[in-house]
Amino acid sequence: MLTVAVDAMGGDAAPRVEVEGAILAARSYPVKILLVGRQEVLRRELAEHLADHLPIEIVNATEVITMDDAAAKAVRAKRDSSVRVAARLVRDGRAHGLVSAGNTGAVMATAKIVLGTLPGVHRPALASVFPTLKGTAAVVIDVGANVDSTPQMLAQFAVMGEVYSRVICKQERPRVGLLSIGEEEHKGNDLTHQATPMLKELSLDFIGNVEGRDLFSGEADVVVCDGFIGNVALKVSEGLVEIIKFMLQDSLNATITRKIGYVLARTAFDDFKKRVDYSEYGGAPLLGLKGVCIICHGRSNPNAIKNAIRVAIEFSKGRVNETIEAALGGENREQAPAAVGD
Amino acid sequence: MLTVAVDAMGGDAAPRVEVEGAILAARSYPVKILLVGRQEVLRRELAEHLADHLPIEIVNATEVITMDDAAAKAVRAKRDSSVRVAARLVRDGRAHGLVSAGNTGAVMATAKIVLGTLPGVHRPALASVFPTLKGTAAVVIDVGANVDSTPQMLAQFAVMGEVYSRVICKQERPRVGLLSIGEEEHKGNDLTHQATPMLKELSLDFIGNVEGRDLFSGEADVVVCDGFIGNVALKVSEGLVEIIKFMLQDSLNATITRKIGYVLARTAFDDFKKRVDYSEYGGAPLLGLKGVCIICHGRSNPNAIKNAIRVAIEFSKGRVNETIEAALGGENREQAPAAVGD
Repeated sequence: MLTVAVDAMGGDAAPRVEVEGAILAARSYPVKILLVGRQEVLRRELAEHLADHLPIEIVNATEVITMDDAAAKAVRAKRDSSVRVAARLVRDGRAHGLVSAGNTGAVMATAKIVLGTLPGVHRPALASVFPTLKGTAAVVIDVGANVDSTPQMLAQFAVMGEVYSRVICKQERPRVGLLSIGEEEHKGNDLTHQATPMLKELSLDFIGNVEGRDLFSGEADVVVCDGFIGNVALKVSEGLVEIIKFMLQDSLNATITRKIGYVLARTAFDDFKKRVDYSEYGGAPLLGLKGVCIICHGRSNPNAIKNAIRVAIEFSKGRVNETIEAALGGENREQAPAAVGD
Repeated sequence: MLTVAVDAMGGDAAPRVEVEGAILAARSYPVKILLVGRQEVLRRELAEHLADHLPIEIVNATEVITMDDAAAKAVRAKRDSSVRVAARLVRDGRAHGLVSAGNTGAVMATAKIVLGTLPGVHRPALASVFPTLKGTAAVVIDVGANVDSTPQMLAQFAVMGEVYSRVICKQERPRVGLLSIGEEEHKGNDLTHQATPMLKELSLDFIGNVEGRDLFSGEADVVVCDGFIGNVALKVSEGLVEIIKFMLQDSLNATITRKIGYVLARTAFDDFKKRVDYSEYGGAPLLGLKGVCIICHGRSNPNAIKNAIRVAIEFSKGRVNETIEAALGGENREQAPAAVGD
């Protein structure tokens, strides 16, 4: 049975959401959970549920990094934070992966410091999975770990994203696109122009430029971009889903006939909300690390934590890291020597 | 009465959509329309409607720039294209503004060449208006006219967007935000870090960094960004609206009860679709030109063309350009000398 360490103090509604998510996961999957955080708090929280029979264990961590903490400073100062202890559990082989809904910057920095990067990886990158019109999943990488990326970094994001799509999203031969502002090769900015020839040289199915709408069209299975762009795209999507839900609800409440219609069609809305709900897709994996680290939204609900734990299990079982290492090794042999330890 | 020149050969469904949009506008607003394009084609199209009594006139242009044309090349080669003739009508004072749903790159290049930029403007920028949760409109600038923008350019986008928000969106004291990946000033990339001090020095209500979701939150009335980022954000939004409509329809068709519910609530969906439909917001104004130029989506419907004509009227009546010129003059006096003719 695999073991997943959950940073129980990270999210906006911690530790309630993390504990409930861990319980859901332990009931649904063959997994052992290590809940990391203030022992007495977690014991109390856990006691409120019928969870004694479940394979959930508490690991004490005395400090908590909050959302308001400056990431770099908190990582340096709080050596016994819940996320750091969780990362150590992975490093020391006591857990196969780590899930956190904490301060994203702090989680990324901690994971990088404690776990280290895979041989040949310049920078770890955050991937996010978008649902598409074709029913497939599009892996967007990077969604916020790196800004002002170099073309070389984009090429590595492509390799890592392609592996993730192949192993986790079960795309046999993922099509990899470069996020730009037009399909034609000359449309783009300096970064896309410089990255294009590098992406063409990789031994993967590079389909050229894709546009913002292709995050959802299914044209590409992997969409590569700088982390600033990817982060904006991700948050634009979240914001739009919110306003659309609001507008729809507002329209449905405007007349009696509509309200009756709404009652009859309610399951459709529940279904719809579920389909546009990011919590269904689990957290965002930080790729390129010596270990498994899944980062959840600070506003995650228990379902999102449960799904992130599922992703951590699949990630570990699917040997994503071993495959990335092999793929980068191959690419690096073909190209320039890897700048290890960047 | 104001006069608007409509590039009748530009969009994907030209000239049908442009002619129908012009007729809708001529019926709704006190405006004279100059339909620019192949005379015989437009005459035939116009004859299919009861439009003889409307103030619509055809202006001949023998060439057409297609969506497949490379923008720069087409602008040089096709001197009698419909968009170029329409731009000349504005330059020569025969029309107050120009509306086109044609090849965006070609329309921007043509407008810049034929109309020229306002004194002190480094680069014209494309603005797009997003609906917000607060019921206000957020002006996002730039959404595709410029990539690899400099911090100085972003500062000018802020000034131009602020004027547009004030005059057209009727925001008394627009709050201007810089699109980034976190609210804290240190979060961002090289460009946002360099632009922040410049934005702080402008005599407008700069609220600092905003995030992708703030395009819809109403936190900012003007969102400033590089055109690459803005274009990705715009197209992510379009793509997401499409997939959400599809998912919702799909869910509603899944059972009989849901279908009945849908029939009863249908007006709510029509209402909802209208509210998320970009055609309601008219086209995107290209700000910073000596003249009025509104660019519509290639897939515009007649309603979008009608609304773009309305925006062109408001733009001209509101004296947006005069206000931008005055605002930039003021800012330039306060700061370094303006690099005119960049």
